Amino acid sequence: MTLRNGRQFLSIPGPTTVPDEVLAAMHRPAIDIYGGEGGGELFEITTSCLKDLKTIFRTQGDTYIYVANGHGAWQGAVSNVLSAGDTVLVLESGRFAVGWGEMARSLGIEIESVAGDWRCAVDPAKVEAALRADTEGKIKAVLVVQIDTASGCVNDIPAIRTAMNAAGHDALLMVDTIASLACMPFEMDAWGVDVAVGGSQKGLMTPPGLSFVAAGPKAKERHESAGLRSSYWDWALRDMEEHYRKFCGTPPVHLLFGLRKAMDMILDEGLENIFHRHALLAGATHAAVDVWRESGAFDFNVTDPAQRSASVTTLRLRDDLRPEPIRAFCFDRLGVTLGLGIGDLSGKAFRIAHMGHVNAPMMLGTLGALEVALDVLGLTDDDSKGGIAAAAAYLGEALRD
Amino acid sequence: MTLRNGRQFLSIPGPTTVPDEVLAAMHRPAIDIYGGEGGGELFEITTSCLKDLKTIFRTQGDTYIYVANGHGAWQGAVSNVLSAGDTVLVLESGRFAVGWGEMARSLGIEIESVAGDWRCAVDPAKVEAALRADTEGKIKAVLVVQIDTASGCVNDIPAIRTAMNAAGHDALLMVDTIASLACMPFEMDAWGVDVAVGGSQKGLMTPPGLSFVAAGPKAKERHESAGLRSSYWDWALRDMEEHYRKFCGTPPVHLLFGLRKAMDMILDEGLENIFHRHALLAGATHAAVDVWRESGAFDFNVTDPAQRSASVTTLRLRDDLRPEPIRAFCFDRLGVTLGLGIGDLSGKAFRIAHMGHVNAPMMLGTLGALEVALDVLGLTDDDSKGGIAAAAAYLGEALRD
Amino acid sequence: MTLRNGRQFLSIPGPTTVPDEVLAAMHRPAIDIYGGEGGGELFEITTSCLKDLKTIFRTQGDTYIYVANGHGAWQGAVSNVLSAGDTVLVLESGRFAVGWGEMARSLGIEIESVAGDWRCAVDPAKVEAALRADTEGKIKAVLVVQIDTASGCVNDIPAIRTAMNAAGHDALLMVDTIASLACMPFEMDAWGVDVAVGGSQKGLMTPPGLSFVAAGPKAKERHESAGLRSSYWDWALRDMEEHYRKFCGTPPVHLLFGLRKAMDMILDEGLENIFHRHALLAGATHAAVDVWRESGAFDFNVTDPAQRSASVTTLRLRDDLRPEPIRAFCFDRLGVTLGLGIGDLSGKAFRIAHMGHVNAPMMLGTLGALEVALDVLGLTDDDSKGGIAAAAAYLGEALRD
Amino acid sequence: MTLRNGRQFLSIPGPTTVPDEVLAAMHRPAIDIYGGEGGGELFEITTSCLKDLKTIFRTQGDTYIYVANGHGAWQGAVSNVLSAGDTVLVLESGRFAVGWGEMARSLGIEIESVAGDWRCAVDPAKVEAALRADTEGKIKAVLVVQIDTASGCVNDIPAIRTAMNAAGHDALLMVDTIASLACMPFEMDAWGVDVAVGGSQKGLMTPPGLSFVAAGPKAKERHESAGLRSSYWDWALRDMEEHYRKFCGTPPVHLLFGLRKAMDMILDEGLENIFHRHALLAGATHAAVDVWRESGAFDFNVTDPAQRSASVTTLRLRDDLRPEPIRAFCFDRLGVTLGLGIGDLSGKAFRIAHMGHVNAPMMLGTLGALEVALDVLGLTDDDSKGGIAAAAAYLGEALRD
Repeated sequence: MTLRNGRQFLSIPGPTTVPDEVLAAMHRPAIDIYGGEGGGELFEITTSCLKDLKTIFRTQGDTYIYVANGHGAWQGAVSNVLSAGDTVLVLESGRFAVGWGEMARSLGIEIESVAGDWRCAVDPAKVEAALRADTEGKIKAVLVVQIDTASGCVNDIPAIRTAMNAAGHDALLMVDTIASLACMPFEMDAWGVDVAVGGSQKGLMTPPGLSFVAAGPKAKERHESAGLRSSYWDWALRDMEEHYRKFCGTPPVHLLFGLRKAMDMILDEGLENIFHRHALLAGATHAAVDVWRESGAFDFNVTDPAQRSASVTTLRLRDDLRPEPIRAFCFDRLGVTLGLGIGDLSGKAFRIAHMGHVNAPMMLGTLGALEVALDVLGLTDDDSKGGIAAAAAYLGEALRD
Repeated sequence: MTLRNGRQFLSIPGPTTVPDEVLAAMHRPAIDIYGGEGGGELFEITTSCLKDLKTIFRTQGDTYIYVANGHGAWQGAVSNVLSAGDTVLVLESGRFAVGWGEMARSLGIEIESVAGDWRCAVDPAKVEAALRADTEGKIKAVLVVQIDTASGCVNDIPAIRTAMNAAGHDALLMVDTIASLACMPFEMDAWGVDVAVGGSQKGLMTPPGLSFVAAGPKAKERHESAGLRSSYWDWALRDMEEHYRKFCGTPPVHLLFGLRKAMDMILDEGLENIFHRHALLAGATHAAVDVWRESGAFDFNVTDPAQRSASVTTLRLRDDLRPEPIRAFCFDRLGVTLGLGIGDLSGKAFRIAHMGHVNAPMMLGTLGALEVALDVLGLTDDDSKGGIAAAAAYLGEALRD
Repeated sequence: MTLRNGRQFLSIPGPTTVPDEVLAAMHRPAIDIYGGEGGGELFEITTSCLKDLKTIFRTQGDTYIYVANGHGAWQGAVSNVLSAGDTVLVLESGRFAVGWGEMARSLGIEIESVAGDWRCAVDPAKVEAALRADTEGKIKAVLVVQIDTASGCVNDIPAIRTAMNAAGHDALLMVDTIASLACMPFEMDAWGVDVAVGGSQKGLMTPPGLSFVAAGPKAKERHESAGLRSSYWDWALRDMEEHYRKFCGTPPVHLLFGLRKAMDMILDEGLENIFHRHALLAGATHAAVDVWRESGAFDFNVTDPAQRSASVTTLRLRDDLRPEPIRAFCFDRLGVTLGLGIGDLSGKAFRIAHMGHVNAPMMLGTLGALEVALDVLGLTDDDSKGGIAAAAAYLGEALRD
Repeated sequence: MTLRNGRQFLSIPGPTTVPDEVLAAMHRPAIDIYGGEGGGELFEITTSCLKDLKTIFRTQGDTYIYVANGHGAWQGAVSNVLSAGDTVLVLESGRFAVGWGEMARSLGIEIESVAGDWRCAVDPAKVEAALRADTEGKIKAVLVVQIDTASGCVNDIPAIRTAMNAAGHDALLMVDTIASLACMPFEMDAWGVDVAVGGSQKGLMTPPGLSFVAAGPKAKERHESAGLRSSYWDWALRDMEEHYRKFCGTPPVHLLFGLRKAMDMILDEGLENIFHRHALLAGATHAAVDVWRESGAFDFNVTDPAQRSASVTTLRLRDDLRPEPIRAFCFDRLGVTLGLGIGDLSGKAFRIAHMGHVNAPMMLGTLGALEVALDVLGLTDDDSKGGIAAAAAYLGEALRD
């Protein structure tokens, strides 16, 4: 017996649920990519998207749209500001800053790391120490993710900037916001971020295939002498006038149709409202987990509640348990897809996304399904049932005013 | 602050959520409606839909697809088997049999009623009595709905048939299955139903615009002398060979694309599974309401649990309460649309649909949202919270085996 | 070898090509059909469609949208203004007025006919004569089509009105505009038309399933005593306030989404521009046929050029020829679907539609394909080739200013 | 007055018309990107696309799908087989091999060129001479396009391979098939091509955003020591097992849905049939131009008919004429978008695409529209009209058998 037939619930931390409006915006015939004198519709879409990305990154810097996934933007970002032989400081807090570092290494960059733990955020004090130790100034950039999609951890970017300042180090601060942009506050300029990287497929609610880089003035200055620049990624070419330059070739027409619509939706709702929505849905998830974890079957991966992210919750299972039965029951019997644990948590964890196009009933439906699954699989007992009621109560409290 | 941005939840008892697959099936260019010798694609769709409707109505009788809504099918049904001056017996259990009777009256038919109550099902004993009283045989047909979408009541069709047989009356048994078809068992032939009426927009998961009639042999026999026959509805014309005859004119191309897809989904899942899914989701809803009702703010409209339908639950509010604040909170703040009370329950009730393309997380999300709304609006207290947990527990129990 | 792979060209005289914008408008989730106090989105769509239909019918009368195809609207129209035993005068000029008459007969109406010819328009003088002969005033309505989709003939509605006036007869003038509305001028009020009937699937560019009736004051007056009124069609019920009354039941949600979009497109382009576009595309078609017919293989069905319609051209083949090879070649090898001959022209004719969402390259592509087919099938010779060039030259001439 | 309202005709040489089926395939909810043990649907799509690309490239080599446009694939291709300081030989025949060379230069590669002419194909004898002159073996690869989208020229790849062999040079042969793949024969293995580059948005009928590289054994061998390898493009990483490796990160879910559908359509039609279709539609275009050019207003850009490509025809205007009025008339009045001249032909030429999802009536409609435009703009006279008839006659001749 299955209760899965109906709209499927996708609760993986990206690519996230695409709004029907975005899918519909992409469902239209191809158009001319060469505008007339004034530019044409596609030119206007590109121009407005580049401009609205500034609003979303909260920067007056330059923005770039790559036809690439997030890893492409990683490569684009580092290749525009660094040279072979440069060193970067990688701040570990899960999987993704490490991955970005590996990417940099493939370009001939040396890697130093502030070792971290999958269960907690980057410690700014360690960053300061590592930078202070770099007396020769070999470190040219600090790589960090705002939210690590694998661990579910959120890093305190302003604190890291403060640490860098305290060390008096002039490395660039490069932040991966792929899993956080348009989910929680990010203030590129106010926080002193030099390079920010984003992707279409998470908070931006657009199918994967586009990624974004924003570059502040210090990054643009370093760019001038960066030795790793190459055509496909090069900001200098993209800063030229012609439309095709913005994409180093053919613009990604249909994905831009989608992105434009998604950004309209984001600006309509307002970033503050979006952040609040994510915070509350994360809070509801945490409230449910706080009940369920009493069974001892699993717990938050991130130990400090303040370091649990607004967009994804990673749950670490008791050593003798595997995530697959939970995922399988939710998918096969209930129509809910939960995220797998990945990297070091592969086979040891599962993830609940609350990211992008998600609202109260989607989240309550997901958590409700998980409550059913945990019950049937014997992973909750009388004391640890009712997580779903706790989630609803949390939202009731939050919406009471 | 709103948590509504995400996929909208539509929990009205029809038109129900249309599966993405059905919407997609309708999104294709128009095609030729005149097949070649063999018929062509549209001819095949029509033929297969007429055939599969027999499977769904569980009949070997003839099926008809009207380009009309359910009221059209009501008119189609009665006009094919009755003559002006005939009498029908209307079995009240809410709004819709009465409406069907009014429709019949507009065609010159006399109405007798078995008076009913919006809070309970038709009493077969009263039907038997009314038919026994018709010693002159004026009553030519009995009109009844299987599920009344307004009251949320389900009638026991086999028991009504038994009552008719007990009375030895030869009136036709005409059943409106608009809100029940493909939601709960219906056995046209086994139960001795002569005419059944259905619509596209509820259990059949297709946008409104198509309605269905199935006719058994006794109905077809009465048809021959029926005085109310007219071209648009006339079965005799639709029994002719040419494709356009099946629709008395232009076939409803895109709606048929949708219907074909929806019926494929239905047959893939299997009627038994669909009925079980509806029964469990209704059960989960009832479990939640059983907790919430402790507050005294509202209660089931249908008093006898056995008479509560598998497809819609109608909740009657305490006299001093109005449904609009609940509906408005759910819609504006949470993205969930609940059904209004209608007819006698207008302004006094609201409805939760669990009908058609609905699964566990959709239902749990809807009930979870309602739990939040009731909490914020002060319609539950400490003893009456946790309906959502009861719903999840109900499903856990049901899926445990 | 086939050259058919690409976008398919549908050149049948309805259901016509649905604009991508209309299909897209229908591809969205279902919404609540019960608005709040103010009505809600669907209520606004209904209201605006009813209003804009007045603009399109050019009337200040009342408009109605039926969930039905065109035949349904026929039945709706006559049942609202006539009583059993009334007589209607059917003006033959092809298939469809006759069909409307047959529909009326099924309702108990007597039929008189002004016999016509499939190759020419109704002769107003004969109409006058027939009405003058009706000294007893038995004729209550005159039924005529503006364009007969089968014969391709266009009738002169103002001239028929003049004839009726000349006869001093007070029958209603009821006009089927299904194949002409939004294709050529129609002036319901200025021309003295009492009842007009339309459908969604031709000039209105929406999938089939909706049909329209407009009623002027004289028709509304007759309505009061009309004996054939029945709920599903009854204007009196539809004149009531509640939204569901407008459709006698469930509104056809997704078709209304499509209709709204199509009417937006029509009003954006402007009726005058639309009529001009149709006139020119018909002219281009006629120019091509004027070349091809020199071969003797086929000719215009309508002999008088002034009586050839703006929306469809019917071509009658030489007695020894059949349309199927032409249709099959165009479809299988080229991707173009031509219309079949129907009714008396079944097996003897084929049809080229230039109706609705059709522009110059669609028409030139269709005619170009037909030129290829005629060539390959040996139905043109050196003197009768180049119809496509004549069509292009015609358009060049027309657009030169 | 405009005749543009109807389906828009897009005749630019990429991104080309996307089939409705492909757009529809992309219009579906997001799915899990992490399969279970067996992989899941997306894994199967990736695997099958990589396999079917081998069929389309006609190779047993390895294929790669980049989330990137064609320029990205250029960079991907060269970075996988070359090292900084290597030299490539660029074979000019228009815009695009030159562009590829510029891209390579940005990576630190030296460029030598076989100078060419926009009006003719690469001369294999010059290739042989250039390679013979490279006595030091500095040239590591030859870069050439099969069809230059700007000039409309097609190069003879087998002849170039023969020239390379004759020179006894071991440079890699790297071919850009972006504007030719699935439009005309390409035999990667049989022709001795080492690296081939393609894109989604032309013959492959999928929106832009994906590009493809196929690598033969010699290229894979060179890859091992290539110094320009970097993570995003690196074949070695993509040759690993995990699904995300195939895309170096998040797979481009919705574009893959589209690509899968497009490849299904390609394989259904068959490559030979597709090539034949393109050849005939190019032939029809050439036949029309052969008539129109008699006016002297414009002529084929490519002088030798044998060097005119199957996918795009570039037309060079008389010196005193500009393309914009022609483009504007076709777009504004007729709904047809022609391609601009680009690069050296900017402002001097326009282009007619016959590439991808295009059939006889689309092409005849486009050419018919151009015939109208040329007529109205006075660019044809009595002797040079009738190009459209010549196109139809050409197709008639071709389909006669």
